[in-house]
Amino acid sequence: MKLYDYPASANCFKVRLLLALLDRPYERVPVDIFAGESSTAAYLAKNPAGRTPLVELPSGETVAESNAILLYLGEGTRFVPEGLEERARVWAWLFFEQNLFEPNVGTARFWRLTGRDAGRHEEWESRRLAGIGALEALERGLTGREWLVGDAPTVADIALYAYAHVAHEAGIEMAPYGSVAGWLARVQAEPGFVNDLVSYPAGARAGSASGSVHDRAS
Amino acid sequence: MKLYDYPASANCFKVRLLLALLDRPYERVPVDIFAGESSTAAYLAKNPAGRTPLVELPSGETVAESNAILLYLGEGTRFVPEGLEERARVWAWLFFEQNLFEPNVGTARFWRLTGRDAGRHEEWESRRLAGIGALEALERGLTGREWLVGDAPTVADIALYAYAHVAHEAGIEMAPYGSVAGWLARVQAEPGFVNDLVSYPAGARAGSASGSVHDRAS
Repeated sequence: MKLYDYPASANCFKVRLLLALLDRPYERVPVDIFAGESSTAAYLAKNPAGRTPLVELPSGETVAESNAILLYLGEGTRFVPEGLEERARVWAWLFFEQNLFEPNVGTARFWRLTGRDAGRHEEWESRRLAGIGALEALERGLTGREWLVGDAPTVADIALYAYAHVAHEAGIEMAPYGSVAGWLARVQAEPGFVNDLVSYPAGARAGSASGSVHDRAS
Repeated sequence: MKLYDYPASANCFKVRLLLALLDRPYERVPVDIFAGESSTAAYLAKNPAGRTPLVELPSGETVAESNAILLYLGEGTRFVPEGLEERARVWAWLFFEQNLFEPNVGTARFWRLTGRDAGRHEEWESRRLAGIGALEALERGLTGREWLVGDAPTVADIALYAYAHVAHEAGIEMAPYGSVAGWLARVQAEPGFVNDLVSYPAGARAGSASGSVHDRAS
């Protein structure tokens, strides 16, 4: 199995984290999205959305979108429950993550760390504020609970962990979120946990060759 | 089964469309999100993210997030495939829809139709341009295909239909997307198809009582 991967993307990190927790081998194929490698004709044939992460199976079949990959690789393991109602709660958190959490927390962080917030403070601030709303929802979901769904970690926890553990880098004060803090520590204590998320390289900065077209490559 | 529902939300419409295609009865509970009805303590206990749509089962169990609801209600029907690889492709389109399509096409449309684009043209335009990128990806995914996954409609088609069929209201010129146009017509020709999406009411406009806090209630 190949993982097309951008090392500084937390969407990619979440897949690497699940693979580490499952102790599953894979070949990592670096994709320099800021050099246009995710928008070549060959790459778009693998994933019409032109994004990482992407999993390619020995059959040549591909699976796109980070949380779809988590569900696919997690199927039949302890990280995806069997019952339909529990699965539905996992799905709900995964969609929340991609619709409210990553576009706001992830984008505000990406813009700030790569200089894309300069010259558009209001737009950045609206993402940051929506990110705070997403953290408040996550805090409510974790209050009185150890894990998001059921009594054990699932792919929902792995997906939300990816951007929640770096939300402070989006300019968000984390002190109000005590249930989130305890849960972050529980994820980090899982056997096999690794954190190999790297910093954005110089080529990802605003004003570098690929410029501002990559507003959402978080 | 109860559906907590905002009639002008295309995220809610996609659930009503699946239920119509399945000819499945349900009780519709209107939620006036612009009057704060989705952020009461009672509602947040049902859904910590404070959003519609939300399904409540006779057991009291709830399922949140539009695309999680589609997967839940579609399980065991012709709209969700059985094989893991095909399911993974459905999941990928559903996450694409919530991460790239709805936040851009849906938000640009919502802001324009309710006056929220006034005074922040650049922010609106960046959502519209990202929406065009999402439509280009959808066009690539449909080129040479009748349906997004396999040879028959799935919940992926229902989810993408919801905002794609009104993308022109986001200020997006649809003429370049011929494969999308043919596919929209195929969805509309499905037995049992209904379109009961209504216009945003006066209470949803910028400057009305609830003001600008509802930037993403599309």
